[in-house]
Amino acid sequence: MSLLVVGSVAFDAIKTPYGKTDKILGGAATYFSLSASFFTQVRVVAVVGEDFTEKEENVFHARKVDISGIAREKGQSFFWSGEYGENVNEAKSLDTQLGVFANFNPQIPDKYKDSHFLFLANIDPVLQLNVRRQMSHAKFVGGDTMNYWINGHRENLLETLKNVHALLINDTEAKMLSGDPSLARAAQKILKMGPKALVVKHGEYGATVFFEEGAFGIGRHPFRAPTLPIETVTDPTGAGDSFAGGFMGYIASQEKLTRDIFKRAMFYGGVMGSFAVEAFGTERLQKLTREEIDERYKVFRELTHLD
Amino acid sequence: MSLLVVGSVAFDAIKTPYGKTDKILGGAATYFSLSASFFTQVRVVAVVGEDFTEKEENVFHARKVDISGIAREKGQSFFWSGEYGENVNEAKSLDTQLGVFANFNPQIPDKYKDSHFLFLANIDPVLQLNVRRQMSHAKFVGGDTMNYWINGHRENLLETLKNVHALLINDTEAKMLSGDPSLARAAQKILKMGPKALVVKHGEYGATVFFEEGAFGIGRHPFRAPTLPIETVTDPTGAGDSFAGGFMGYIASQEKLTRDIFKRAMFYGGVMGSFAVEAFGTERLQKLTREEIDERYKVFRELTHLD
Repeated sequence: MSLLVVGSVAFDAIKTPYGKTDKILGGAATYFSLSASFFTQVRVVAVVGEDFTEKEENVFHARKVDISGIAREKGQSFFWSGEYGENVNEAKSLDTQLGVFANFNPQIPDKYKDSHFLFLANIDPVLQLNVRRQMSHAKFVGGDTMNYWINGHRENLLETLKNVHALLINDTEAKMLSGDPSLARAAQKILKMGPKALVVKHGEYGATVFFEEGAFGIGRHPFRAPTLPIETVTDPTGAGDSFAGGFMGYIASQEKLTRDIFKRAMFYGGVMGSFAVEAFGTERLQKLTREEIDERYKVFRELTHLD
Repeated sequence: MSLLVVGSVAFDAIKTPYGKTDKILGGAATYFSLSASFFTQVRVVAVVGEDFTEKEENVFHARKVDISGIAREKGQSFFWSGEYGENVNEAKSLDTQLGVFANFNPQIPDKYKDSHFLFLANIDPVLQLNVRRQMSHAKFVGGDTMNYWINGHRENLLETLKNVHALLINDTEAKMLSGDPSLARAAQKILKMGPKALVVKHGEYGATVFFEEGAFGIGRHPFRAPTLPIETVTDPTGAGDSFAGGFMGYIASQEKLTRDIFKRAMFYGGVMGSFAVEAFGTERLQKLTREEIDERYKVFRELTHLD
């Protein structure tokens, strides 16, 4: 079933120990939608400037992502320039230019309102809540956020969290949001803020989902999915958004939300994140096939399963 | 079959956010042997001073650990005092007194020489190699080390590593030993130093084993075992040694070393480490039952297994 993502479609210039890029297509909604497109029909609401051309459109079209909900404004698209050292979990921002994104006020086209699945990528929680209200029929809503909103816009974020089924953040964000350095305790505190499921992404160690007791009729013990120990992380940009795309995309592709399906979604999330980092920007996601995804899913299974 | 461990039997005074202890029984060989004793017959070679009394002996005897190989010397046992903050992966050493451990020169009693399994806990690599030579018949040898030996006694350590089947260290140590910040590449470099298997412990994220191609007839893809996300790490001391005890103990208890057995050993390692941190010192290991171990093994399986 249809999955709507609202977030940034942007340009990045990235430097890592393995090379650097000029201005290339990026943004959370871009990684998310390309990743999810291997599982279900994806729709995007975002805003771009005049630098978003047919070349970028074709990246989405090639994956059959519906971008008719992307607004076009006069000016430049959101631009970020950053550098990663050997610690791929920490990016150093060199330049950020909001461009047309500064006035982003997402309006959901009527034709998108039947989307049963919604992902609120990392944007101002006020906008996330505004989108959530426009999409009141959504059956399953995932969301992301970051330190900037956790520290500086906490009240707004807490309001948004009451309206999200699954929150997907990393360890640092979970500890920051809860104020608790123990991940297991942090999870319990965040689950009291609204989300029924909390997916904590551990970078190279995989991800763990914690459930509110009884959530979705399936919530009880946590579940942990791996990532592959890979030798070269060429560009970590978009790994988390690609994880979210695989996770939400797989859930949206299924009739029901069972515990088994949730577990598989965690695995697919890890698989998609592991592909994203193999090349700069969206390059690897553009060239990927469903066969490669299912092959790596088997490798992840072999990596973690007894007998 | 019999498993011999050579390492420290010591006393610790520990402070964590959850309390503090006076001088209590500790040491790598202590945690290792108590943990392994749930799986197989364990023998210990170590040195202690006059502060090691019947009270401490009884901790080992209660678990049927053979400590007749522990040498008694005039003076005090090795003593360490340390403090952990909320980051349980980093201890601050407050005091270290080598005591009788300063002249430790392990001699393996003849009656121990039929041990098929040997674990060289974290001691001077020169002593590790000396023990390894006395135990030339051992079928499977595991070993540990730490930053002190990696940085300051590298040549000796490299000599020892040529004589170890499985090296068990943590992420930081693996990156330090290899000089490579990518764990997957670090593993490949370490496997060229001698060990056929490298077990990297990730703290709260579990552990991953990397194999030399074809090692033991089972080496191919890596395998990752979890740990439980627990709310309160009361005292992280001995977690790694308890992991090693579960891992080596389970392997020693089996007739053959198959890939399935290696995988289960990784799970049992994680299980034992997760118990060790629940209370101060060896308290939790002393009270543990095999039923609890197998119950948690099932929880670990549920935590990571699809369908």
